[in-house]
Amino acid sequence: MKKLILILCLVPVAGVADNTAPRARDLGIPFDGTPGALNAITDVASVTVGHETIIEDFPDGRAARTGVTAILPRGKASNDEPVFGAWFSLNGNGEMTGTTWVEESGFLEGPVMITNTHSVGTVHQATIQWRIDQGAADSSGFWWSLPVVAETWDGYLNDINGFHVKAEHAQAALDAATGGPLAEGNVGGGTGMICHEFKCGIGTASRIAKTSEGDYTVGVLVQANYGLREQLRVAGVPVGQHLREDKVWTEDVAPDAETGSIIIVVATDAPLLPHQLKRLARRAALGLARIGSVAGNGSGDIFIAFSTANEGANQADPGVEVRVLANENIGPMFAATVEATEEAIVNALVAGRNMTGNRGHVVKAIDHSQLIDVLRKHNRLVE
Amino acid sequence: MKKLILILCLVPVAGVADNTAPRARDLGIPFDGTPGALNAITDVASVTVGHETIIEDFPDGRAARTGVTAILPRGKASNDEPVFGAWFSLNGNGEMTGTTWVEESGFLEGPVMITNTHSVGTVHQATIQWRIDQGAADSSGFWWSLPVVAETWDGYLNDINGFHVKAEHAQAALDAATGGPLAEGNVGGGTGMICHEFKCGIGTASRIAKTSEGDYTVGVLVQANYGLREQLRVAGVPVGQHLREDKVWTEDVAPDAETGSIIIVVATDAPLLPHQLKRLARRAALGLARIGSVAGNGSGDIFIAFSTANEGANQADPGVEVRVLANENIGPMFAATVEATEEAIVNALVAGRNMTGNRGHVVKAIDHSQLIDVLRKHNRLVE
Amino acid sequence: MKKLILILCLVPVAGVADNTAPRARDLGIPFDGTPGALNAITDVASVTVGHETIIEDFPDGRAARTGVTAILPRGKASNDEPVFGAWFSLNGNGEMTGTTWVEESGFLEGPVMITNTHSVGTVHQATIQWRIDQGAADSSGFWWSLPVVAETWDGYLNDINGFHVKAEHAQAALDAATGGPLAEGNVGGGTGMICHEFKCGIGTASRIAKTSEGDYTVGVLVQANYGLREQLRVAGVPVGQHLREDKVWTEDVAPDAETGSIIIVVATDAPLLPHQLKRLARRAALGLARIGSVAGNGSGDIFIAFSTANEGANQADPGVEVRVLANENIGPMFAATVEATEEAIVNALVAGRNMTGNRGHVVKAIDHSQLIDVLRKHNRLVE
Amino acid sequence: MKKLILILCLVPVAGVADNTAPRARDLGIPFDGTPGALNAITDVASVTVGHETIIEDFPDGRAARTGVTAILPRGKASNDEPVFGAWFSLNGNGEMTGTTWVEESGFLEGPVMITNTHSVGTVHQATIQWRIDQGAADSSGFWWSLPVVAETWDGYLNDINGFHVKAEHAQAALDAATGGPLAEGNVGGGTGMICHEFKCGIGTASRIAKTSEGDYTVGVLVQANYGLREQLRVAGVPVGQHLREDKVWTEDVAPDAETGSIIIVVATDAPLLPHQLKRLARRAALGLARIGSVAGNGSGDIFIAFSTANEGANQADPGVEVRVLANENIGPMFAATVEATEEAIVNALVAGRNMTGNRGHVVKAIDHSQLIDVLRKHNRLVE
Repeated sequence: MKKLILILCLVPVAGVADNTAPRARDLGIPFDGTPGALNAITDVASVTVGHETIIEDFPDGRAARTGVTAILPRGKASNDEPVFGAWFSLNGNGEMTGTTWVEESGFLEGPVMITNTHSVGTVHQATIQWRIDQGAADSSGFWWSLPVVAETWDGYLNDINGFHVKAEHAQAALDAATGGPLAEGNVGGGTGMICHEFKCGIGTASRIAKTSEGDYTVGVLVQANYGLREQLRVAGVPVGQHLREDKVWTEDVAPDAETGSIIIVVATDAPLLPHQLKRLARRAALGLARIGSVAGNGSGDIFIAFSTANEGANQADPGVEVRVLANENIGPMFAATVEATEEAIVNALVAGRNMTGNRGHVVKAIDHSQLIDVLRKHNRLVE
Repeated sequence: MKKLILILCLVPVAGVADNTAPRARDLGIPFDGTPGALNAITDVASVTVGHETIIEDFPDGRAARTGVTAILPRGKASNDEPVFGAWFSLNGNGEMTGTTWVEESGFLEGPVMITNTHSVGTVHQATIQWRIDQGAADSSGFWWSLPVVAETWDGYLNDINGFHVKAEHAQAALDAATGGPLAEGNVGGGTGMICHEFKCGIGTASRIAKTSEGDYTVGVLVQANYGLREQLRVAGVPVGQHLREDKVWTEDVAPDAETGSIIIVVATDAPLLPHQLKRLARRAALGLARIGSVAGNGSGDIFIAFSTANEGANQADPGVEVRVLANENIGPMFAATVEATEEAIVNALVAGRNMTGNRGHVVKAIDHSQLIDVLRKHNRLVE
Repeated sequence: MKKLILILCLVPVAGVADNTAPRARDLGIPFDGTPGALNAITDVASVTVGHETIIEDFPDGRAARTGVTAILPRGKASNDEPVFGAWFSLNGNGEMTGTTWVEESGFLEGPVMITNTHSVGTVHQATIQWRIDQGAADSSGFWWSLPVVAETWDGYLNDINGFHVKAEHAQAALDAATGGPLAEGNVGGGTGMICHEFKCGIGTASRIAKTSEGDYTVGVLVQANYGLREQLRVAGVPVGQHLREDKVWTEDVAPDAETGSIIIVVATDAPLLPHQLKRLARRAALGLARIGSVAGNGSGDIFIAFSTANEGANQADPGVEVRVLANENIGPMFAATVEATEEAIVNALVAGRNMTGNRGHVVKAIDHSQLIDVLRKHNRLVE
Repeated sequence: MKKLILILCLVPVAGVADNTAPRARDLGIPFDGTPGALNAITDVASVTVGHETIIEDFPDGRAARTGVTAILPRGKASNDEPVFGAWFSLNGNGEMTGTTWVEESGFLEGPVMITNTHSVGTVHQATIQWRIDQGAADSSGFWWSLPVVAETWDGYLNDINGFHVKAEHAQAALDAATGGPLAEGNVGGGTGMICHEFKCGIGTASRIAKTSEGDYTVGVLVQANYGLREQLRVAGVPVGQHLREDKVWTEDVAPDAETGSIIIVVATDAPLLPHQLKRLARRAALGLARIGSVAGNGSGDIFIAFSTANEGANQADPGVEVRVLANENIGPMFAATVEATEEAIVNALVAGRNMTGNRGHVVKAIDHSQLIDVLRKHNRLVE
């Protein structure tokens, strides 16, 4: 019965945006800065996102609550047109494959894939296969791929050692990628994720950065799965200290330390070079800190940033030119990254829905009205 | 006349703690965690700190408002007994010399010196001279020193191109170093510093980290000199958006972006190895983020962490053993670092005193009663 | 017919050492330093290595020439007893998963797996499955694995997009791991690899480092697959400039730049901390440079170092102590790493055997007598 | 009397090129690649170099044998027109100030200064003063400098604790900087330096890199002061094992490990971005390795690379464009860097001249005819 309720509640968010679900600012939570039209990573033109959500219950009490999320920097052109990219690890208890080449080359080639910890291998190979199927350079047999695949751990709600993510799921996420409004919460790679001991998952937000060289968009997508309850701050208010009930972790699983992780993807259309994108990736840590994270030992807090500007930058032709935003004018980009990260995480939290998963484990979503109450008491509600 | 007032106001904090001045928690500002006895970096046994404050006015309108702060990990034994150490640069628009060897060797040898940007050279050589005078290994002529000297920029209040810091000032700071309560605010290297467009300077705080392997102390000292007014958050409350008046920068100097820097020194008695201390150094960024910083392009946000445990770790004898805190138990150390950093910065801000400096530039301290008012309105005051 | 010859020649090296095959120093090639008893990574006590070699021909001209090599730092205890570890990327056009956690934690947990570029995913998941099957912490469902899987590209001789490496191959390599003499050349992950346009593959060597704190062993294993012919230097002699014939690359595949990669694994029993192991990993680059590599853009030159000393270092109990070799005494460890890397690469080259692979591509091994001739002409042969 | 001879022998190289002194390839030492017209870093247009050599003897037996070398990427325009830059530390037992900002910003602003270890402070402040005197941005009092000052240790031949380098010496080196042929050996910052236990110092070389996008120049300048005798390899020949006499270190100073350091400056006119310049900086390690270095614990092996292309790249105007050499075409740049580094070090060694210094310490230069003999015996002499 629980399962029935669960499935009903999940259907609307399985890969498509639930336009009726409130997002963080719909609740009156205040944020700094100006969001883009969708307040999503897809405000950065050409970025597409696809979710594949896997919900399945098995007779023996095991349950699949997992999935894959694919972010394509240039949509369908992502295989052939790399973007400048860079990464940063705030706390590396996690995996993001492909980063050694991102660091070396300054380019992110192909999509960013996010799944659960034990499905990295499947998604890695599936992404190569998909590239070959798409006729990318690898299909010649004389080129190679170093896909970027990241993860967070969903082993509380998901039967992670059942390896329920298959190659077709990764490919479905890639094929489903579109622009426009995005589903958040219990969806795609975020399906079984937990933040600050509330149900969580995928979240997104964006900002318009007004620089002296013009306006640029910064979009952030997070797969959020980290944090202890008492550390949670929303709009600066220590709400986790006020909402102490309904904490996860049954007696058989009582971690005395922070586990879980957060993957943060920062996209922009500003013409930033790789070393400048690393600066953006590092700022994602500051947005995360505003929510109260101390980046616990068990957390894989790994961030990647890319710029969709400068198409053709990797062309092996003489005279290739790229535009550059001056360091002196980069400040608004930093603020935008911090602010969009902060809001994307709160969006993931607000979009979370109660879930019953593997072996009957239950994780509740944050109660919107309780959250509003705490913020109001601290004069931090936009009403 | 202004100058007279200024001098009167500065005398009490010139190198000795002003026991009557309120600190952040004296005002009722709430913080997480449990501080040590002094709520200062000197709660870490053996750590000593010395300030040398330089206040001088010249007939042509130039004024010296600068100084040097020395942190000695093992007090007078610091030259001969290195500590494990590590560093992290959140935004490297600044200098911390000696870090290449800290990174390579895993050791911090000798003191950490903090001064203004253009006095790094003087303090660097003075520290070597002091080591020689103390009979450290260099005095043989067959060893060498790679001192750690960091800086922030005080050119608004201080005639920075006058190079007013002399060798004797650095050596005085070193010689003055003691344990016990510390002066904060307009003192030592922090004399002419500015945070979020309020007068600022040196701040310190500490935490007791309760780990599964026992209690350890984390002490933090900051030389804080960064940030725009509107970004300032205290206890999560965006106070900078409520206290908009008295902003610095006269018309002749109107930076449209964040300038300044923050140096953060993290000390602990927990037995951490160099790679673990790098994890602590990185957490200082999270404490800084709680105050609202986005680590602006012009900011030199450079952090160093060291452990006073494991004396003798560098001995070139067979069988040297060192204790290690397990990664699994390190979580409380991370929280302690974030919390102590957060409080140390607020302490620096609260301890700041109005100052008139170079060419008559004036910077006002944050008004304590206004700050209290804003916090009370947000239900974030401990009363 | 070619295939028949090929198979006959490969059988002896498919996973077991061919005791009759000469190694580099058997040919009279001079090297500095003193090797261990086996002149192999397995001279480091507890290190075991397993190869799984995949040779298969398909009717359509495609051919599998690939495999997996597993290095277990503590043999069968590797899952439960991590080793201190560190990594370095000289040129990151390659993959070594798991390094983010190695860097963060200072530990290498479990084996190092090496395979071909497009089989990283399969081997990644297979390693997790193997850990679960072995009853490692993951099997609880409440822990996770971040396996270390590295690769080089064998797409000239191997049908790399056929994904011929299966989970059982990875597990077979793990199960086959033993100490003692090792097979080199066309074996395991090195089966289809090419160096300096000669057939190459796996190579190993070791050194005894005589430090002031006692003798320690450094063992190196390489999967070598990089380099242009004219860059090849053996014992300092530019032999590649004298042995210009039989270069690989048919007309349909004529790279005008260096492709391929080299994975270098450095093992030691010296009590080095993670930051010291990073220093060792970096020295592998210097050994590689002696053979003439300039670390071409297409090369994934990624190195990992670990120490088998300090068993129990990760225990979450109070008072854990670890031994440390002083930096001051580490010099012989550096020389040993450089020298063992240099010899391991030459061993991989000398052990290579002619191979006909995918689509009839042929790569010849270096001709031992020609190599000897060139060295003799330069007075660099031990006779 | 010794001193008299010494002074006579040093005069010709004190800051100006000695056109009669043979360089490495004049002796018949073979090198790969094609040098530029001068075979010097000044083959990169706009790069200028100045040396200030300090030779002074004191009645008490102390002697100054030291100096300063200044490299200006854009000659007199270097203060106002930054160059893209990056750095790499192979072994960080040394200092290169300013690198934190180079890493963060991607720019090298102003000159690279090289001196002795204990004069870093003096040269640091002198460089700021010089910038102010030149009317650079700092002179406003509202900008700041983070000079790049590197060092190696000359305490065997030089009275290093006498701090004989003064501000005027640094400024003289800056003012003296010119293009054209360069002095090598006992000159500038290299005056008292020692390599592989031979007298050494400054060396330079260059290469023309023929890329698919056109020809570019790579110039290298080293201040070389590292290495044990037995490790020395020239043209791949282990000459250090054949030239064992005249080793330095009297009985009172008998290091049992490698001390000293090498600073390597790599300049190019190729349009490389900062992350690509880091790749070049890393290749300097491979050139150093060819000479036999294992980067000993006591060595500060720190490298910086910059590109003179893309003037105006830091301009804070909209639409700034920069040219980029494709990664795919960068291979010849890597080879050029390795080869020019190798030759620059041998040039430093060949240019060294016997020196008697502090407390009568004597260091002999390598004997050219002995060196030639050894190379001839190994069939490695161009005759």
